[in-house]
Amino acid sequence: MTRPATSFEGPAPRAPFADAFVAALRAALPGVAGPVGLHDPHFSGNEWAYVKDCLDTGWVSYNGSYVSRFESMLVDLTGAGSCAAVSSGTVAIEMALRVIGVAAGDEVLSPSLTFVATNNAIAHLGAMPHFIDSESKSLGVDVAKLAGYLDDIAEMTDAGARNRLTGRRLAALLPMHCFGHPVDMDPLLELADRWKIPVVEDAAEAIGSTYKGRPCGSLAPIACLSFNGNKIITTGGGGAILTRDPELGKRLRHLTSTAKTPHAFEFIHDEIGWNYRLPNINAALGCAMLEQLPARLAAKRALQLRYEAAFAGMNHVSILREPSYAKSNYWLAAAILEDGDVAERDALLKAVQEAGFMCRAAWRLNHTLPMYQDCPRMPLETAEAIQPRLVNLPSAPQLLRTEPA
Amino acid sequence: MTRPATSFEGPAPRAPFADAFVAALRAALPGVAGPVGLHDPHFSGNEWAYVKDCLDTGWVSYNGSYVSRFESMLVDLTGAGSCAAVSSGTVAIEMALRVIGVAAGDEVLSPSLTFVATNNAIAHLGAMPHFIDSESKSLGVDVAKLAGYLDDIAEMTDAGARNRLTGRRLAALLPMHCFGHPVDMDPLLELADRWKIPVVEDAAEAIGSTYKGRPCGSLAPIACLSFNGNKIITTGGGGAILTRDPELGKRLRHLTSTAKTPHAFEFIHDEIGWNYRLPNINAALGCAMLEQLPARLAAKRALQLRYEAAFAGMNHVSILREPSYAKSNYWLAAAILEDGDVAERDALLKAVQEAGFMCRAAWRLNHTLPMYQDCPRMPLETAEAIQPRLVNLPSAPQLLRTEPA
Repeated sequence: MTRPATSFEGPAPRAPFADAFVAALRAALPGVAGPVGLHDPHFSGNEWAYVKDCLDTGWVSYNGSYVSRFESMLVDLTGAGSCAAVSSGTVAIEMALRVIGVAAGDEVLSPSLTFVATNNAIAHLGAMPHFIDSESKSLGVDVAKLAGYLDDIAEMTDAGARNRLTGRRLAALLPMHCFGHPVDMDPLLELADRWKIPVVEDAAEAIGSTYKGRPCGSLAPIACLSFNGNKIITTGGGGAILTRDPELGKRLRHLTSTAKTPHAFEFIHDEIGWNYRLPNINAALGCAMLEQLPARLAAKRALQLRYEAAFAGMNHVSILREPSYAKSNYWLAAAILEDGDVAERDALLKAVQEAGFMCRAAWRLNHTLPMYQDCPRMPLETAEAIQPRLVNLPSAPQLLRTEPA
Repeated sequence: MTRPATSFEGPAPRAPFADAFVAALRAALPGVAGPVGLHDPHFSGNEWAYVKDCLDTGWVSYNGSYVSRFESMLVDLTGAGSCAAVSSGTVAIEMALRVIGVAAGDEVLSPSLTFVATNNAIAHLGAMPHFIDSESKSLGVDVAKLAGYLDDIAEMTDAGARNRLTGRRLAALLPMHCFGHPVDMDPLLELADRWKIPVVEDAAEAIGSTYKGRPCGSLAPIACLSFNGNKIITTGGGGAILTRDPELGKRLRHLTSTAKTPHAFEFIHDEIGWNYRLPNINAALGCAMLEQLPARLAAKRALQLRYEAAFAGMNHVSILREPSYAKSNYWLAAAILEDGDVAERDALLKAVQEAGFMCRAAWRLNHTLPMYQDCPRMPLETAEAIQPRLVNLPSAPQLLRTEPA
């Protein structure tokens, strides 16, 4: 199979490499008819029954029983003490940072290699990201490098850790489990404890992943999940804040509502509420999907193994594997190109998309985006080295089904 | 029917009055089996079909076709130039204020007699409400009184109107159409224009209402709707920002997403996005309900007429009617008690609820809530006089159906 080089803009693709890449995708996904999306939603359980129940009973809004059921299921899954289901992963992180006291003028240590929502949530509070580097095994925070960096730039004050160069408080550390691969949390938590920097776990991509046997979403005192359309579990749009502290969980449910105090017929609100609760109809979808989480995780792991096998014999590319200390949910499978530049990656992505496979580039490093380019950052060599060479592969669990849909 | 006085806390109810009130509710709602909610959602059109279509196609998240269809339907309904559907009425107001430049340290002129979300949206920006009084016909902004007040406390500067007493900018005026009754917008817009204060129309409760023939949601350059569970049109939770300016509408859709620029496989974001878009599954519900808006409005108007007739012969109470310049959607019917105090109103509400009718008090005046009691305010005599004497009545359009449900 050859493609005419004239069908592409930019530099000519390395056609043999792209062809081999497409052949490996085809080998990993036998019998899958294209076009193949990156991670399309797919509903095959009780979704319609539960959603229909909401419509039939009229319980579509914030106070329905699926909301508390969804929260309970997430507590059971993660071992967290309490949960508040909200309207997006972004507002989950925003509220988690808010309740631990992050405020305007603070800095939050956060990866540059992440979906932009991580850093937007910081900016929503008037705080700013302080970008930190990733390491190449998990693609998450490079803890050893961060430790050295903090020794260089931070100082302890009565109000906590401070950036000596900017004078701003280092108000939180926000590790993100990239593509579902857990950050090496034990040394990270130890480092954060040494500097008295609160940790918020961005587990938006990591539902079902475990770190040394402990579920992501319970590794820090407060953690966040996302249920956006391309996630393993979706509620259309949605997120959740998990916390070990049941009192804090109650407070989060209060703050993410309109902060109304209970009364039979009066409207009394005792503080500023945010109106971020997840509607019942979305929670119903989430409940039905969570019931299928074990099967979905198993399918994704099997798909990962197929990619590993299919790409095993190919030069210049490797499939990213979970770190040795963790089990990943393999949210998005990732191929790392061993050499080449952005132009060659782009040519590959065009060729692969033309062949019917939705592969995509890693997110632009957030410190290069216009709104964040003046934010403080450590040297980001690893993120800068990996980002141009990383390609995500189609990863939806239903791709593994061989029976008719 | 008598109730033992010992079944209530507080002062004994005016039992004959409560009995007459319940009798009037029963007369207005013949054949309705209790308990009767205030404004429960009810789905009788294409809700099932559209929501199931989302599940069947996998389009449950932000990019589905029901979102743009819902936005188009709202544009058609209101005559606005553009629309951005979002996850709540609160964030709709927050984003509307944000794009007109309201920022931390500003004051926004806003009613005290409103659902707290109006003022929470102001607080979310770090701005503060400056509470203004209502007038007794529409329960909306008392424009004449506001005009005199601004003459007393405001001054014009190069940066716009300023509160002379606090030195803060008067950055916006936020009229709210209370229970669906339109504010007298022409003099309000004239006053705002004189002071160069931008107006954001809080039409959260006023979908389908008209002012001098013009639809609410199109009376100011930018306006907000809510689709919370108890609204005439619900999406579970949701809201919309309407604007006359198609470019501003496009910018609002961009800002309420993740502000991603179009690209086949790269993630590039050109500013801080808020991730507030309405998911497709919620928009599908909204589309189906909007199709039924004319019938729902007609039923609500007929219900209002029944309340007017049923309470016509009763002393010490009157049913609030739409202002002469407007057609109200009669979102929530309201009875005004002509005398009595809060204790008597509470006794009435307890008795009425015990009889199976969910009537409720007006919202606590927002300037009395703990988080807003130190905010600036004008004398609020009318709001203070009306609030303790107002009782909302069951108002869902399906209450009028006489055929079996």
